[in-house]
Amino acid sequence: MYCPAHFTESGPAEIAQLLAAHPLAALVAMGPAGLVANHLPLLRDGDGFVGHVALANDLHRDLPDGAEVLALFRGPQGYVSPNWYPSKAETHRAVPTWNYQVVHVHGRIHWSHADKDRRRAVALLTAHHERALNGAAGWTMGDAPADFLADHLARIVAFRIVVTRIEAKSKLNQNRGAADVGAVADAFEARGKSDLAQAMRRPLKP
Amino acid sequence: MYCPAHFTESGPAEIAQLLAAHPLAALVAMGPAGLVANHLPLLRDGDGFVGHVALANDLHRDLPDGAEVLALFRGPQGYVSPNWYPSKAETHRAVPTWNYQVVHVHGRIHWSHADKDRRRAVALLTAHHERALNGAAGWTMGDAPADFLADHLARIVAFRIVVTRIEAKSKLNQNRGAADVGAVADAFEARGKSDLAQAMRRPLKP
Repeated sequence: MYCPAHFTESGPAEIAQLLAAHPLAALVAMGPAGLVANHLPLLRDGDGFVGHVALANDLHRDLPDGAEVLALFRGPQGYVSPNWYPSKAETHRAVPTWNYQVVHVHGRIHWSHADKDRRRAVALLTAHHERALNGAAGWTMGDAPADFLADHLARIVAFRIVVTRIEAKSKLNQNRGAADVGAVADAFEARGKSDLAQAMRRPLKP
Repeated sequence: MYCPAHFTESGPAEIAQLLAAHPLAALVAMGPAGLVANHLPLLRDGDGFVGHVALANDLHRDLPDGAEVLALFRGPQGYVSPNWYPSKAETHRAVPTWNYQVVHVHGRIHWSHADKDRRRAVALLTAHHERALNGAAGWTMGDAPADFLADHLARIVAFRIVVTRIEAKSKLNQNRGAADVGAVADAFEARGKSDLAQAMRRPLKP
């Protein structure tokens, strides 16, 4: 990804927050028929990421174990009008742009048909998301009848992405003055994009 | 993309709406150093898509003219808790899932350093987004000083994606009964995801 130094997101806490808050990744690979992408929730697990695909998804047949993959996690984003910059009224030296935060996880994918790995992938993902959404009242695998769950697990394939490199970009008008940054954050806030406004208002790197 | 028939989005109007409402695409390619993605607003233009990258972005040097690209446009998305299904209380035959709408544009990229193409790419994109945001008060290229604009245009490369195939997926619980679909739409609505709720409530294919 093209990423000038002033847009490089290097804060481990910010990257972890983006991965946790935007877990539906676009998992990209080069398959035998060309570029392919699938949209899958991925969960960080130690030094890797876990997920699963449908057994009917050819991806696990098309990509050999250890194949290169790229998982794109996209955070908040929005169009920036030059009209929002206070400096624009003075100098008119502004063009439209787009603000966004993204994390790119480069890695190698490893498949598993083992029942324990399929069960673990579903357990980790559902525990994580149900806890966040429903707390102690969250759904657990034990809520489903054993035969239904076994049938469900038999129709998925677990995977683990072993990370080779993580790149993150926070494109948040860092190349403009504080008055412009503040005004754009206010404009996003007013349009319901408070997550993007909040990202813009956090202390930026020196 | 893995896409069972009941999740395949084949409505041209729905696909056009998704592309227009979610223009920041992840443009994916296989570069000399592996998979690479850049996040760029793309605009439909006749039978192709137009966009531009920074001259400093190696993508236009790394990808030969006509190289394969995949542009991912992501619409609304959200985690679905099994607790939301009315049928769950009766049968418990449910697991968590994720609802989302995506459009994948497969194509070949063609670069242009011509001033008219760079100017056209910026003009089309900014006119489209400024009109949507600010109407008649929208920013136009004429608002910027000529020397500033010329300098800006000199630092971008225009491109056109010639489409080879478009795939779209609307994963909106079409495999569940109407009561479950309605309850999930209500849950998304209550959580501020009205775009996802609205997509779920439109008449689904027979």
